[in-house]
Amino acid sequence: MAKEMTLYWGSGSPPCWRAMIALEEKGLQGYNSKLLSFEKKDHKTPEVVTINPRGQFPAFKHGKIIVNESFAICEYLEDTFKGQGTTLVPQDPMDRAMMRQRMHEGNTLMSKFVDVAFYFWRIPEAERNEATLKRNKEALTAEVKLWDGYLQKGNGHYLAGKTFTLADVIVFPVVAFLFRMGLSEEKYPKLAGYYNHLKTRPSIEKTWPPTWKETPGQPMLNDI
Amino acid sequence: MAKEMTLYWGSGSPPCWRAMIALEEKGLQGYNSKLLSFEKKDHKTPEVVTINPRGQFPAFKHGKIIVNESFAICEYLEDTFKGQGTTLVPQDPMDRAMMRQRMHEGNTLMSKFVDVAFYFWRIPEAERNEATLKRNKEALTAEVKLWDGYLQKGNGHYLAGKTFTLADVIVFPVVAFLFRMGLSEEKYPKLAGYYNHLKTRPSIEKTWPPTWKETPGQPMLNDI
Repeated sequence: MAKEMTLYWGSGSPPCWRAMIALEEKGLQGYNSKLLSFEKKDHKTPEVVTINPRGQFPAFKHGKIIVNESFAICEYLEDTFKGQGTTLVPQDPMDRAMMRQRMHEGNTLMSKFVDVAFYFWRIPEAERNEATLKRNKEALTAEVKLWDGYLQKGNGHYLAGKTFTLADVIVFPVVAFLFRMGLSEEKYPKLAGYYNHLKTRPSIEKTWPPTWKETPGQPMLNDI
Repeated sequence: MAKEMTLYWGSGSPPCWRAMIALEEKGLQGYNSKLLSFEKKDHKTPEVVTINPRGQFPAFKHGKIIVNESFAICEYLEDTFKGQGTTLVPQDPMDRAMMRQRMHEGNTLMSKFVDVAFYFWRIPEAERNEATLKRNKEALTAEVKLWDGYLQKGNGHYLAGKTFTLADVIVFPVVAFLFRMGLSEEKYPKLAGYYNHLKTRPSIEKTWPPTWKETPGQPMLNDI
């Protein structure tokens, strides 16, 4: 089955990493893994744009089925391979509701992170404004505090219930990126505990972004 | 069951509207519907913040279960009340994959819409930049073209398969907001066809934002 799957991805992108973690967890090793380059603008090539018309990674195909949104890829894999590998959706209805809530909140964490960490990359120099960046940093600080608070409940190992779920697949890559960019483990001890607990999970360790192993992160979030 | 549910909402917010459409479709009339005011900053009151710590609408509670993210609310209702009302998840695996893909793409449409339509509301005057707004408009134009293209396939009535699904629950409110803000029906005929087909659907007509009935939209998107 995995042989009929192709994933186009770029190193370090949380949405790509989510898909790769889900593929590992569902025991779908052996898929066609196409690591391409953001720098070379591979995501704008016809090969990728045919699958993902926005010209973005990830781009994912399973036979005739195309799913590119990282949430949709993870949900698709869990739905299609229910009885295989890790069950990523909890049985308990309350945990399941919590999983959905945290997954989608993950979009907010990601967007507030991007507004700070990629500000200089996304906003042309002539349009940059110090006051905007300051506001973005304040918003990210409030957001990160919220997640640190969430993890004070329970054992702090997982975001929803007592097992690894889609919420962790979605949110962990963003948390890892935060720490790579200099987020303080001292200021956010619960989030750091979560990060340190999951970073050695086999599906995560195996799919760790190759560029992250080669280069250090930039300490951009020291003041968050 | 519906009596144990409370929805705090603001008029005209697509995330709130999604929850209301899903509640109607699942036959959950009779829930506690708390219409509050964005202008009065009701979303920042303790009553709402206890449920939704970001102080945002929607805020939703079903007994002890709290779900605030609009996607999560809709998925929770479909999951919990599977056999009741409209089945919002297609049986066919290909349609289901497409539904997930379009749902999550709905976030991109929403965010590009917000970047234009709420630019003056979200960005303080001193930080505004004409070049940014121009870029945002170009991004929204490309995005809207993409959706018009999606609807050229099939009968153009629904986003995934031959029935009304979660993809429509999520995306329709954004499409309706686009047209309210002056998007051209001539330039985007397929999107307009979709809009006009669904706007009289009972769940949608019944939950149409009350403020939209009272006041006209602003023609902000004429040049999109």
